Amino acid sequence: MKIREVLEHYNDYLDQQMVLEGWIKTSRDSKNFGFIQLTDGSGFDGIQVVYEGDIENFKEISKYPLYSSIRVEGNLVESPGAKQPIEIHATKIEPLHLAEADYPLQKKRHTFEYLRTKAHLRPRTNTFQAVFRVRSLIAFAIHEFFQQRNFVYVHTPIITASDAEGAGEMFQVTTFDLNNVPKKDGSIDFEEDFFGKHANLTVSGQLQAEAYALAFRDVYTFGPTFRAENSNTQRHAAEFWMIEPEMAFADLNVNMDVAEDMLKYIINYVFEHAPRELEFFNSFIDKGLIDRLKNVVESDFVRITYTEAIDILEKCDREFKYPVSWGIDLQTEHERYITEEVYKKPVFITDYPKEIKAFYMRENEDKKTVAAMDLLVPGIGEIIGGSQREERLDVLEAKMKDLGLTGDNYEWYLDLRRYGSVVHSGYGLGFERAVMYITGMKNIRDVIPFPRTVGNAEF
Amino acid sequence: MKIREVLEHYNDYLDQQMVLEGWIKTSRDSKNFGFIQLTDGSGFDGIQVVYEGDIENFKEISKYPLYSSIRVEGNLVESPGAKQPIEIHATKIEPLHLAEADYPLQKKRHTFEYLRTKAHLRPRTNTFQAVFRVRSLIAFAIHEFFQQRNFVYVHTPIITASDAEGAGEMFQVTTFDLNNVPKKDGSIDFEEDFFGKHANLTVSGQLQAEAYALAFRDVYTFGPTFRAENSNTQRHAAEFWMIEPEMAFADLNVNMDVAEDMLKYIINYVFEHAPRELEFFNSFIDKGLIDRLKNVVESDFVRITYTEAIDILEKCDREFKYPVSWGIDLQTEHERYITEEVYKKPVFITDYPKEIKAFYMRENEDKKTVAAMDLLVPGIGEIIGGSQREERLDVLEAKMKDLGLTGDNYEWYLDLRRYGSVVHSGYGLGFERAVMYITGMKNIRDVIPFPRTVGNAEF
Repeated sequence: MKIREVLEHYNDYLDQQMVLEGWIKTSRDSKNFGFIQLTDGSGFDGIQVVYEGDIENFKEISKYPLYSSIRVEGNLVESPGAKQPIEIHATKIEPLHLAEADYPLQKKRHTFEYLRTKAHLRPRTNTFQAVFRVRSLIAFAIHEFFQQRNFVYVHTPIITASDAEGAGEMFQVTTFDLNNVPKKDGSIDFEEDFFGKHANLTVSGQLQAEAYALAFRDVYTFGPTFRAENSNTQRHAAEFWMIEPEMAFADLNVNMDVAEDMLKYIINYVFEHAPRELEFFNSFIDKGLIDRLKNVVESDFVRITYTEAIDILEKCDREFKYPVSWGIDLQTEHERYITEEVYKKPVFITDYPKEIKAFYMRENEDKKTVAAMDLLVPGIGEIIGGSQREERLDVLEAKMKDLGLTGDNYEWYLDLRRYGSVVHSGYGLGFERAVMYITGMKNIRDVIPFPRTVGNAEF
Repeated sequence: MKIREVLEHYNDYLDQQMVLEGWIKTSRDSKNFGFIQLTDGSGFDGIQVVYEGDIENFKEISKYPLYSSIRVEGNLVESPGAKQPIEIHATKIEPLHLAEADYPLQKKRHTFEYLRTKAHLRPRTNTFQAVFRVRSLIAFAIHEFFQQRNFVYVHTPIITASDAEGAGEMFQVTTFDLNNVPKKDGSIDFEEDFFGKHANLTVSGQLQAEAYALAFRDVYTFGPTFRAENSNTQRHAAEFWMIEPEMAFADLNVNMDVAEDMLKYIINYVFEHAPRELEFFNSFIDKGLIDRLKNVVESDFVRITYTEAIDILEKCDREFKYPVSWGIDLQTEHERYITEEVYKKPVFITDYPKEIKAFYMRENEDKKTVAAMDLLVPGIGEIIGGSQREERLDVLEAKMKDLGLTGDNYEWYLDLRRYGSVVHSGYGLGFERAVMYITGMKNIRDVIPFPRTVGNAEF
């Protein structure tokens, strides 16, 4: 029997004999009684097991080391006045495996830094039980949101021969013997490599998702992406997951509608499926969390243009570290001022100067801006970035030529504008950023099971 | 309005005026009438648009090239006796974008080989519309199955410094300048590489999933895995997706129960959500498909030991290419004989000789076999492989030592047996193999949007 099931439906099991298996989370005893907090990982809460002096092996049980695995037979009874309404009166407790005494997560506060060195054990702690269950729920909520709306989930490739998506430094993928890289006419002979060409890890599935949107109308990707950036910050990892919906016959307004609905859907899903975890985060990780999330689901998101945003920033009496003028890339301080202080709720900023945005974004009639949108949320700043895509062959081709994006590798992308081109839009959500936002965790290393960063690929 | 919505609830929209956007799938006309099969990718079926001689631009419309995108205003009316019960009587048809005349998927049969060279366009064809929508549905069904059972979805790492998972050749991941790989004392100085060590693409998330099962009880992975094998077959790709559930307090029988329930769940889900696609596969791709899938969901899967399977194979009057004796690795011909001819339904084979199975599988009391299981299904052979894991520290440590799997990289895996070790089990399902099985498609390149194989990383 799983402990989650017992706790969720305890009325059905009251006064019944049951067998539970789990791990000892805490243990204490007095002369005639012992108490074990038993967890089996099936839910955030364990269950209290009480055993009396006359149980077999009373003395041994109280000495079982933390996180030993045990098998408990007992009766489910009410426990009025206690934290939980029920507890198990054990009639038999057997060890399955006694943990060695040097178990690294003894009962005391450990820093997150220390726990990162024990990434294989940290999901056993309250914080990481909560983080990684919520991570799983958010992932599922995203799938459910899109599937209910009939979006097709596309697995865009992880290994790619394209290296100009422009989103950042890439990792190379090779089967070369690095001691002996084949050369031809003085340069590396990639024809000898596994794929017959230079291959990298993807930084985005968007371009391929566009091809699928022009066949299925509404699609989304959800997969790992990579950046080989040598930046050691709280918000950067070399390997992280992204969600990239892409929609045909959809302009920037539809794009924002979907992004807003999605974010609200995810948060509501977590409220419904992980209330205990959210309470935990709100108490121990980030005091204002629940209010902030409630504010998001209850708000109509604001929509302003970049030009309006610049106007607000120029006219306000705040001193910014980065000076404001039309054309700059908004910094986190600007974004947070607008979402936290001006509007106090999520804000879409649209129609950015084309110079600071990607080549595939649709140029507006003013020829100065593109139909881009960023979603800013209080407490974090940008969480989603998207755009309407340039669907006009001539405009796109000219832009790509300017950037040197020519040749066979790009013809397929242009084909999408040659044969039945349509207005289409999409956005990207960094999955870990969403997990951090909803859990209140501050370091990306603490929301990825086994994080990969500069100098770190342990486990 | 999306065409799928119109078709699903056409009674609600009869005799109403509507606007549809989509692509011209087929087009024909007579003197006074024209017919367009309009698709928007929202579902397998398009809708028939009828326009009459008095419509604006009658002559131009009939000449719009295939896969031009158009906007149709019209009335939804009944069409008795036709294939579909309804059609659109158009009052206005406007071009959004006229496809160039050299559209590579003109209306004729194209080979799958040709379509692979047009991977960005092939999802527009009937076959690949069906394949990739079903692929998406299977992915979601898998998530739903595990989430309903409270499994935690774990993103195990894609980049790994471990290279001894033993499942196959690995790709290296590096940011080295391959023209100038840093050396130290004559060998490659991986300390200079991005992760400070030699890094590869994962071949399996199982070991890391085990760490999470020992915290959450029931977990699963669903992510890409990689093999750098130089094998150019219909069933091998360099990049593919795997599902790997892992369960604590679960022996081999529980493992088989979950695998059986999962496979039936997926198939039922596809029957429910993609009946038109299954009919299509059954008519055009694989004639016996629907019967075979029905047989799977209606069967109780057989469970026999390897020793029993060998006995059956030795006693039967079939001549096999690979001779049978206790200790051999079963070949596809053996597997298919057992599942297709002896039992005519899915068969679990358990308790294989330890020499032919992986080091982490639990050794049985006979010391000759391990608690492994393979699921064989008619029409394909092995589809799932799993095992109970060796939870005894001393047995596992001895095995790993024999294989040279020692040192810091493996201590964390042994820790799982040092601190609260429990009986646990899991299995792996190759996602593409499942998609091939359920669609009847024969080549793995035709069930992956942009396949990666030896010499091929296009798009």
